[in-house]
Amino acid sequence: MTNLNSIVRLSAIYSSLLCASLWCTSAQAQPDAPFAPVIVAEYLPRNIIYLIGDGMGPAYTSAYRFYNDNPQTQRVEKTIFDQLLVGMSSTYPDDDTYVTDSAAAATALATSYKTYNGAISVDHQGGPFPTLLEMAKAQGKTTAVVVTSQINHATPASFLAHNESRRNYDQIADSYLSNLIDKRPVADLMLGGGTQYFARNDRDLTLEFQEYGYHYIDSLSDLSSIENLPALGLFAPKGLPYAIESQDPLRLTTMTRKALSLLSNQEAPFVMMVEASHIDWCGHSNDIACAMNEMDDFANTLSLVKRYVDSHPDTLLVATADHSTGGLTLGRDGTYQWQGQLLHQVHSLPSTISQLIIANPEVLNDLAAFSAFLRPHISIDIEDRKMDGLRKMLNSRLSHHKHQQKIEDDLKQTIDKLTYTGWTTGGHDAIDVPVYAYGQGALYFRGHKDNSEIAATLIQMVQDERYKVK
Amino acid sequence: MTNLNSIVRLSAIYSSLLCASLWCTSAQAQPDAPFAPVIVAEYLPRNIIYLIGDGMGPAYTSAYRFYNDNPQTQRVEKTIFDQLLVGMSSTYPDDDTYVTDSAAAATALATSYKTYNGAISVDHQGGPFPTLLEMAKAQGKTTAVVVTSQINHATPASFLAHNESRRNYDQIADSYLSNLIDKRPVADLMLGGGTQYFARNDRDLTLEFQEYGYHYIDSLSDLSSIENLPALGLFAPKGLPYAIESQDPLRLTTMTRKALSLLSNQEAPFVMMVEASHIDWCGHSNDIACAMNEMDDFANTLSLVKRYVDSHPDTLLVATADHSTGGLTLGRDGTYQWQGQLLHQVHSLPSTISQLIIANPEVLNDLAAFSAFLRPHISIDIEDRKMDGLRKMLNSRLSHHKHQQKIEDDLKQTIDKLTYTGWTTGGHDAIDVPVYAYGQGALYFRGHKDNSEIAATLIQMVQDERYKVK
Repeated sequence: MTNLNSIVRLSAIYSSLLCASLWCTSAQAQPDAPFAPVIVAEYLPRNIIYLIGDGMGPAYTSAYRFYNDNPQTQRVEKTIFDQLLVGMSSTYPDDDTYVTDSAAAATALATSYKTYNGAISVDHQGGPFPTLLEMAKAQGKTTAVVVTSQINHATPASFLAHNESRRNYDQIADSYLSNLIDKRPVADLMLGGGTQYFARNDRDLTLEFQEYGYHYIDSLSDLSSIENLPALGLFAPKGLPYAIESQDPLRLTTMTRKALSLLSNQEAPFVMMVEASHIDWCGHSNDIACAMNEMDDFANTLSLVKRYVDSHPDTLLVATADHSTGGLTLGRDGTYQWQGQLLHQVHSLPSTISQLIIANPEVLNDLAAFSAFLRPHISIDIEDRKMDGLRKMLNSRLSHHKHQQKIEDDLKQTIDKLTYTGWTTGGHDAIDVPVYAYGQGALYFRGHKDNSEIAATLIQMVQDERYKVK
Repeated sequence: MTNLNSIVRLSAIYSSLLCASLWCTSAQAQPDAPFAPVIVAEYLPRNIIYLIGDGMGPAYTSAYRFYNDNPQTQRVEKTIFDQLLVGMSSTYPDDDTYVTDSAAAATALATSYKTYNGAISVDHQGGPFPTLLEMAKAQGKTTAVVVTSQINHATPASFLAHNESRRNYDQIADSYLSNLIDKRPVADLMLGGGTQYFARNDRDLTLEFQEYGYHYIDSLSDLSSIENLPALGLFAPKGLPYAIESQDPLRLTTMTRKALSLLSNQEAPFVMMVEASHIDWCGHSNDIACAMNEMDDFANTLSLVKRYVDSHPDTLLVATADHSTGGLTLGRDGTYQWQGQLLHQVHSLPSTISQLIIANPEVLNDLAAFSAFLRPHISIDIEDRKMDGLRKMLNSRLSHHKHQQKIEDDLKQTIDKLTYTGWTTGGHDAIDVPVYAYGQGALYFRGHKDNSEIAATLIQMVQDERYKVK
């Protein structure tokens, strides 16, 4: 694909004439564009809430159901994921790997175009792909991004920016103030982390956003102070704290609730992207307790959004994952068992426990001391013999030059063995991910879809003239 | 649940009065029965073809798509699985494991009731659960079972028999002639393996089936000799040969084609269960090349059945898996890659290669001899250094007392590393499996279903009076 084509593509955002000839029949005009259905007027949603569970493959949603099961009943209680499932999605990038990273996957989910791993809504030559949020903004709709990562991380960046590499965090943050639609930033509301990229020594983007009229806050406890849009909330230097150790374990739910309240007060239709970013991070770390706590926040967010759609039936909820992470499976070493409910008894990250041990190695001196130390962090009943084996193993790690990582790994593997949890990689895997949809237009997402097709359908919806404001 | 209840349940098969009061409103009458929809007359199928990919979790169907991809095109070609996907299913048994075996899963899929691992359509007290095929037969419909395992293996057994343990192979085979509906065996057509259980020294069940008028054959090449039902074909002592080494790698497709031809010639509606049994066996063995060849046979079977439904729109196709096996994932050790297309260059089972090496250890003498030996079995280009490393490792195994298993494992792990395939267990895992449906009534299977709900819906369809013959 040439850069000329890229320019034509981007200019399409600003022109309803081009939209009619290029975008709304994009499958014909662009040979590499995925198929998208023509949206029937009665199923066209006014508002779109697009939720992405980063890294959330089918093992995560299955695990979450068993993690939440009431073992006193014969049947396993269904989750919000089960209520909303409509299909599955393939996630492969446009290279020879079949295993996508979050940038290529988010590009496909935001633009309908496949690209290389690492690309933020650009093609192989660096030319920009127009994004769903750019198109929504160009139509006069209200736009929002709510994430638990830094807001310039791969997934939100692919909705708001164009860059040849997801690693160019400062450049991507800068582009949130240079990639303008009608002389305004793409998103009217951004909630997440990232102060270290936005309030920098060389440039304070938070001040520049305020010059654009954005209300800026840097603490979740100030969320109620936002009364109008536009607004920017950055609540951590990079990503927000992990749910398992957060003062507000349901912080994605909290942010999404506020966002829905602000968006509902607008006259214009809205398009919002919500990412449960940390599921993936727990997956990379092969930390199942961490992942289940993130899943809990995402499940609560989905329930909240479903209730919103129930009371606003002109709204569409679409949720999926960008890929699965870690090669997670529920079962290991030949045993037919998964004991995920034990994970409710894990209260700290292995990295936290590891740091405490390194700071206080005497907690490893004997079994009684170690048991007393560990109980506030991991309260699973572990028989004395095994507990003492763990103590001795951790003790032996203290002389190792990578002792913190070794202790973390030992703790995670102990939990994995107790719960029969298996992992095959610290990276991503190529397994299809679930797709959820509810509300107006949900029927278009049924069955197997490629991630690019999900975006192509949403783009058809956003580009429809019916809810265009200007 | 009491045995009295079990008796009441089984007697329900024979009584349309009981059916109306007990089965057709089973959710009310049986507190542990799953929800099933009321089937609207216009969506009621005349015939049902129920396909089960044993062990086929979402990693298998994702892998099969990439295995079949044409790498010259940007998009990955969709498979028959992608065309037919409608949802996903949970598979847990009624015990404290969350990980089902094939018997408990097949019982749920055949009867709508959850039970313990190992149970063949019986409850915890050994009382029988009526099965879909028993109900179909009691209604005068034609019934068939087509599998690649022995026909008395867990999945087909759960449709045709009742036993406290799947391991009672002879008892289960015997019960195919004692568990009668209107004095006739449950299935009018059985194709698969199992001669060692049916033509035994103590009792030759094949003769007894012939006394019931069954045409009996024991060779796939005689399939064309079956002109009428009832018929029994047993083509191997236990399961049929693996597809990767079979003279007819698409033997499930071949058997299903014949079955459809025979069933179509009947006046009565039909219900057929087709199992791709070996996907699970390859999964237990953690053998990805083996699994992809089995998936190919199952994919061709699905395509065949879809074409049948296209020309017989009163027919319903429902397909799913009983569970996923092996903790298979596509990606390992941190690398973002899956090279499944290399698996087309694996032509033999590791057990076969291992046996040849043990019989001819001189093939390990030097690199040239080993390369020449290996190429007809594994034609993947492997650099000399790695090939010689493999040779030396296999050589070192020859003195080990478990040398055959060690050599097999080394070969499988070599292929896993070349393709970036990961496994976490030799058993099953608890991840939800895909659900496929097509044709009349397919809409009832959309979204998330428990395996028991799939069966409950099919039972509602089979029990409907409209297509009852007698």
